[in-house]
Amino acid sequence: MQQSIALFVDKGYSATSIQDIVDALGVTKGSFYYHYKSKEALLMDIHRQYIEELLARQQSILQDAAPAKEKLSEIVRLLIGDMEKQGPIANVYFRELRHLKEENAKAIRARRAEFREQIESVLIAGIKSGEFRRELNPKMIAFAVLGVTNWSYQWFQPGGELSTGELAELYTDFILHGIMPTQK
Amino acid sequence: MQQSIALFVDKGYSATSIQDIVDALGVTKGSFYYHYKSKEALLMDIHRQYIEELLARQQSILQDAAPAKEKLSEIVRLLIGDMEKQGPIANVYFRELRHLKEENAKAIRARRAEFREQIESVLIAGIKSGEFRRELNPKMIAFAVLGVTNWSYQWFQPGGELSTGELAELYTDFILHGIMPTQK
Repeated sequence: MQQSIALFVDKGYSATSIQDIVDALGVTKGSFYYHYKSKEALLMDIHRQYIEELLARQQSILQDAAPAKEKLSEIVRLLIGDMEKQGPIANVYFRELRHLKEENAKAIRARRAEFREQIESVLIAGIKSGEFRRELNPKMIAFAVLGVTNWSYQWFQPGGELSTGELAELYTDFILHGIMPTQK
Repeated sequence: MQQSIALFVDKGYSATSIQDIVDALGVTKGSFYYHYKSKEALLMDIHRQYIEELLARQQSILQDAAPAKEKLSEIVRLLIGDMEKQGPIANVYFRELRHLKEENAKAIRARRAEFREQIESVLIAGIKSGEFRRELNPKMIAFAVLGVTNWSYQWFQPGGELSTGELAELYTDFILHGIMPTQK
């Protein structure tokens, strides 16, 4: 899976053949088909593994008895914090969804929507508790939070001028300022 | 170009052949090659046209004698405001850059960076004038602004519950709250 992710990032899913994958690994096509029915099945596995891990980690954040502000910060850290590890898989996840079979794409889209709806529910809880501004549109703000975090996968170079931890803190600060009442 | 954009959005650049494009138009390959040397030349034209138009429109915003706050709002409106028209081309622009020849990709990346640096310069001006918070990292905030706006191309359905104009206003409000001093 890791080798295929590297190839998909580099050449794109369409332009990568099963032959390319097995060549890069020095194995035969037979061993590929032992693990996966098709290239699409492999792509589905990449998508599923990525979103299921995110959802599990989000769930453990949501279970904390913490203020909405804290939960939202933790979710931002979750998304940005392990970009080193998850960067390439996220790259494939964001870009190659359209190459899944319709039933598979639908299943992944539903799980992605759940992740976003959990962010929305944190925002709604924070609006109710007075932590966040009453006039916010929680659905659109959930998308904005994902915009800030997911877009960073497009440009951020781990090991550059900022660490992922520093970036997560900058963006938590930006987002919280964006949604908290002006009068503190 | 429009027909090819529709095909690239649907099937991806790699999976779309020149034959697919001319078939969809009911013309011959000869007429394709009359306009473009190759599929890559067409892709480059899509990228160039998109970023050059954005830069020209950004330039006219920057020339106004307006506060930084106003300029930034206008840039957000520029990016979100004509998603109906620009959605498909932006989709290709964001996703297929890696299929350009290295020299072409480099030229486009440089122009993209200019657009972002202009946002950064508006942020720096606003920090200096006291409109924006002093502790901001203008480079990272410029990326965040692009994250909020560009990500919306991934999910926003024009004609749905919000108009693009309403979305632009929501996001301008979110971004400005995120960067303006807490005490008004």
